[in-house]
Amino acid sequence: MYNTFGDFFKVTTFGESHGKSIGCVIDGCPSGIKLDKKFIQYNLNLRRPGKNKYVSRRNEKDKINIISGIYKKRTTGTPICILVNNFNKISKDYKDIKDVFRPGHADITYYVKYGLRDYKGGGRSSARTTISLVIAGSIAKKILINFFNINIYSYLESISNEKINFVNKKFINSSFFFSPCYKEKKILKKIKSTIKNCDSIGASIKTIITGLFPGIGDPCFKKLDMELARIISGLNAVKAISFGNGIDSINKKGSENNDNINKKGFKSNNSGGILGGISTGQDIFFTTYIKPTPSIFLEQTTLDKNFKEERKINIKGRHDPCVAARAPIIVDSLVSIIILNSIIIQRTNLFV
Amino acid sequence: MYNTFGDFFKVTTFGESHGKSIGCVIDGCPSGIKLDKKFIQYNLNLRRPGKNKYVSRRNEKDKINIISGIYKKRTTGTPICILVNNFNKISKDYKDIKDVFRPGHADITYYVKYGLRDYKGGGRSSARTTISLVIAGSIAKKILINFFNINIYSYLESISNEKINFVNKKFINSSFFFSPCYKEKKILKKIKSTIKNCDSIGASIKTIITGLFPGIGDPCFKKLDMELARIISGLNAVKAISFGNGIDSINKKGSENNDNINKKGFKSNNSGGILGGISTGQDIFFTTYIKPTPSIFLEQTTLDKNFKEERKINIKGRHDPCVAARAPIIVDSLVSIIILNSIIIQRTNLFV
Amino acid sequence: MYNTFGDFFKVTTFGESHGKSIGCVIDGCPSGIKLDKKFIQYNLNLRRPGKNKYVSRRNEKDKINIISGIYKKRTTGTPICILVNNFNKISKDYKDIKDVFRPGHADITYYVKYGLRDYKGGGRSSARTTISLVIAGSIAKKILINFFNINIYSYLESISNEKINFVNKKFINSSFFFSPCYKEKKILKKIKSTIKNCDSIGASIKTIITGLFPGIGDPCFKKLDMELARIISGLNAVKAISFGNGIDSINKKGSENNDNINKKGFKSNNSGGILGGISTGQDIFFTTYIKPTPSIFLEQTTLDKNFKEERKINIKGRHDPCVAARAPIIVDSLVSIIILNSIIIQRTNLFV
Amino acid sequence: MYNTFGDFFKVTTFGESHGKSIGCVIDGCPSGIKLDKKFIQYNLNLRRPGKNKYVSRRNEKDKINIISGIYKKRTTGTPICILVNNFNKISKDYKDIKDVFRPGHADITYYVKYGLRDYKGGGRSSARTTISLVIAGSIAKKILINFFNINIYSYLESISNEKINFVNKKFINSSFFFSPCYKEKKILKKIKSTIKNCDSIGASIKTIITGLFPGIGDPCFKKLDMELARIISGLNAVKAISFGNGIDSINKKGSENNDNINKKGFKSNNSGGILGGISTGQDIFFTTYIKPTPSIFLEQTTLDKNFKEERKINIKGRHDPCVAARAPIIVDSLVSIIILNSIIIQRTNLFV
Repeated sequence: MYNTFGDFFKVTTFGESHGKSIGCVIDGCPSGIKLDKKFIQYNLNLRRPGKNKYVSRRNEKDKINIISGIYKKRTTGTPICILVNNFNKISKDYKDIKDVFRPGHADITYYVKYGLRDYKGGGRSSARTTISLVIAGSIAKKILINFFNINIYSYLESISNEKINFVNKKFINSSFFFSPCYKEKKILKKIKSTIKNCDSIGASIKTIITGLFPGIGDPCFKKLDMELARIISGLNAVKAISFGNGIDSINKKGSENNDNINKKGFKSNNSGGILGGISTGQDIFFTTYIKPTPSIFLEQTTLDKNFKEERKINIKGRHDPCVAARAPIIVDSLVSIIILNSIIIQRTNLFV
Repeated sequence: MYNTFGDFFKVTTFGESHGKSIGCVIDGCPSGIKLDKKFIQYNLNLRRPGKNKYVSRRNEKDKINIISGIYKKRTTGTPICILVNNFNKISKDYKDIKDVFRPGHADITYYVKYGLRDYKGGGRSSARTTISLVIAGSIAKKILINFFNINIYSYLESISNEKINFVNKKFINSSFFFSPCYKEKKILKKIKSTIKNCDSIGASIKTIITGLFPGIGDPCFKKLDMELARIISGLNAVKAISFGNGIDSINKKGSENNDNINKKGFKSNNSGGILGGISTGQDIFFTTYIKPTPSIFLEQTTLDKNFKEERKINIKGRHDPCVAARAPIIVDSLVSIIILNSIIIQRTNLFV
Repeated sequence: MYNTFGDFFKVTTFGESHGKSIGCVIDGCPSGIKLDKKFIQYNLNLRRPGKNKYVSRRNEKDKINIISGIYKKRTTGTPICILVNNFNKISKDYKDIKDVFRPGHADITYYVKYGLRDYKGGGRSSARTTISLVIAGSIAKKILINFFNINIYSYLESISNEKINFVNKKFINSSFFFSPCYKEKKILKKIKSTIKNCDSIGASIKTIITGLFPGIGDPCFKKLDMELARIISGLNAVKAISFGNGIDSINKKGSENNDNINKKGFKSNNSGGILGGISTGQDIFFTTYIKPTPSIFLEQTTLDKNFKEERKINIKGRHDPCVAARAPIIVDSLVSIIILNSIIIQRTNLFV
Repeated sequence: MYNTFGDFFKVTTFGESHGKSIGCVIDGCPSGIKLDKKFIQYNLNLRRPGKNKYVSRRNEKDKINIISGIYKKRTTGTPICILVNNFNKISKDYKDIKDVFRPGHADITYYVKYGLRDYKGGGRSSARTTISLVIAGSIAKKILINFFNINIYSYLESISNEKINFVNKKFINSSFFFSPCYKEKKILKKIKSTIKNCDSIGASIKTIITGLFPGIGDPCFKKLDMELARIISGLNAVKAISFGNGIDSINKKGSENNDNINKKGFKSNNSGGILGGISTGQDIFFTTYIKPTPSIFLEQTTLDKNFKEERKINIKGRHDPCVAARAPIIVDSLVSIIILNSIIIQRTNLFV
């Protein structure tokens, strides 16, 4: 019963990896907004598998089908339902795993929880369900850009233990891997050797929000960092999140870590643009840590679904060597929804 | 309007650092539970300032006053209101800072947000407000222990760049600093030199949840790690959170990071006891990173509250050299509330 | 942003009268339940227009299309999306009214609120959107019947000022007008003369819930009557709701109105099965009052959409002479969702 | 767990009839508002028992004690906790009833639900808990008056089967019975004979909201009438609610019931100021029906708390002959909170 996300601009998601469609209902989108279908499709294309040979080869067009909420190309204030059909389902890839649990996967916990299992493509726990988030996030992002001049971008900060140079954000979306550096050789080398070894690797993603005015985020339990930490932690394979100079801050003294202020504003941004859960007006930034894809093509040990027999498992199918390399656009989408909601919340303070 | 936390066992918090009282209303506590006042007081004592010379010297007894919800020492299912009075207010300490913003503090963001400021003791952004959380968390923790045999404990994992040995959890609560090692010399040395230098330091806290059965946590937006990440990120001065082998997982291969399974269960616990946002039945563990206390006794640069004049600021008052050293009991409290709520949520799946 | 209803068994509705589809997403349906498509379709048929000549002649088959949440005919615990397409759209009927507001309709308030208007078929304010509620309500109702032996039925209690005899509930669903009396002459006469006069009439509906155990409903703000009053008041054209002997109770003395209790239970049921917002274990009953259909075929006076010119309006299209005569199945659906949710809530009291 | 009410301006209530205090926490009150303590006290005085000899003689001063959220007499945007102590507890009055259930009361349903019972003064089900609502409602009402020029008033429309003339609203608050007619003889006669007969009577209350602009209320599940119906139905002893010409509308034809529109606006107000759940800009009005006080001083039949033995019950204590005669100020308070919330919701439509 927890498939809805957002307080005002709300997204209810539905659909399984190998079902008819993935979709979402967006409730609370302001009325009178021109829906930019191209922008949604552009972002879905950034996310979609099969776009190059370094990501899952499941080949889906991921075209959107608008069911409701739009009249004469504009939002009406009523709920917007959008579907994306699943075409390229190869369920036979999953036949071998239907009676065992894949290590590192949610198979086992879903089974324990619900007493049954839609083993094909991971069912509802599949990353394919993030399509819904990209659709809704794109609409939110467009509103942030057009009406508030707020921009959000995410890129690969490091792949495995390799740091990636930040050169320019313009490279990000044309990169195979959301890399901010035009030279992708280092990344490519890592990815290729990972594919060759039938293994997978992890990575970290940096996200930057520019243009957000101060005063956004609400004590005590709707702080901006709480909201971001929550939603980012829910993204498949995320294992840690760090705000501002985050993890490093524990090695600093207060005198080094505090951001002093002068007439021009803050003299540094160790806080990552958030103090007491409220935006300072500086850039907000944080890092997301994503574990290696659990689906690997090496033999692993597991149990059968009766929890009795030990089994060897050899996973087939089409899987990303590094899921993090497709995640930045999803992170952007989630963040867009959070920021839009937080701005709306601020308006509920009647006299501001 | 976001001072309530929890879905079923719900806590509404109120009160400011230098107001009459800090308090909370706990709604949704099951009926018929014997209220263990001593346990609440024990935990409040672990949290309270003035308990030793290495923490803030604000000397408060923090005795609880039960206003409602208890009849013949048992909960009735109706809301429980509990107050703790503020006695040891030295508001003059704050006179000097009333027209400037303390670097690293929420003063400036609250002021921008609300257009006014209760400068005394940080008002509502003060860590003193965590009293409410410890009260409610203690009630939740007792339920978890008595009815489910679930235990939660948190300890200092590292102080600044110094790792602390885990010896035994029995040392934690008798330590000055929630240290799991009976030798506290290393910590003490760090703290003393920090006090001497009028500065502050950061630290990390490790939390372990034992005894939680599998199947707890709900896709897509009520995953257990989402819930924990959210609430922990809201605690004063927290800057990062990492689940299982978290940040380190990005340096591993999938084949190293996946937890294989055999008849005895999982062969490792890199996941930290959560897969797909649902508990696996193993211990759940995560690390919280807390920045150095922003209130230091060194001169800093800041602005006056008209955002016009640059000012030097010299903070007085009673502040912790390392806020993290008082935080473990608060983390435990927050986690207890989350876990209790998550267990209740599982019961809403009617046929389980 | 308020198109979701229910706390645990939750329904998010979408779709407009003349859009592609009407649909809903049901979140929180327990897993492992066999989905009874025939039962859903049966109830949709009871609701649908065009089923006889005394209701709107819009001829829709209203066949359901299941998009997600079902695996091997059973619910999986993931969100269930179901669509019903709109075929029989005659938008030209609405051309004449696109620049004026229909008296008694929500046209004018929607326009003021959203700044635009989907005039075709009432858009989102159309009673056609209740399809979503019947779909979700049917699933809830089936769970109530199969797992709890709780039954809910609603019937026409009076049409205009004419009281209808209650003979047997078995007549209700085969009646043209959800009448519990096999003789429908009186009703038919009223309806026919209303159609002839190009006018419309109101009616009242009685609803009875049998088999609900005591203890359901939660103080202070989740009382069973609060929940029912809320959702019933939201149904198109509803103007009043009365529980138990309701409106009549004000003419009684306490000594007449109190339900005394003896060994066999309550000696009367003036309360309507609810005391202090909590079920008593008796039958719950209430009456819903529905105004005459606002769309009539007589000339009326109104304003143009610039709020400047007075206009005469002659409504065309396909409208019910008495909307109440199609409403009982929708009331049942709404009540089913409320009761199922209330039962789930009771399970959140951990130790019951 | 349902003791919180309101979406933005939120009230969490606590306290029992014979406990230490009744109180509330108001979360989401805008910052910078001057708190009008006198206005709160004035309304509490209108509500309080013991104010004349025709209402319960429990003599309470009901003075407010502000715990948090106010700084220099203004709201700070943080939660406002306010307490009212219980002094005049005569618990011995309740000794006789501690083992039996009072007919018409929530004793029996609370007992079944929670497995225990705070029999003194009805505990949490007592109308004394409405103090919290009057406190919060007074703050909301003052905001509505001062910032939006919206007024709300409620009065006795009929007592038992006796209609009361509406003369002028200025008489309401100085009347013993919230009567809008300066001649109270008819009411007095009814009340006196009821007291003499040791019985009780019911009544209806009319509520009028003036000055609310159009466009307030949200489809589909946050309609203004849904919100009002819900909260009013939750008030102790309420059995029915009717909007506009409500119950009478079923006897009218559409052509009589529709409110035609001309240049000056609507030509009538049968709708009661709400169409499609959204305010029309006209006065909003509705009627609340309240059953006779269940506590009467005549012998009644009931069961003991083991559900085994039949018992005679003779209620003592201090009870109102007509609870409705103290309810109008509480209805006003509830309505004020709803209207303020609904106005805030409208602001979440970003571009309005």
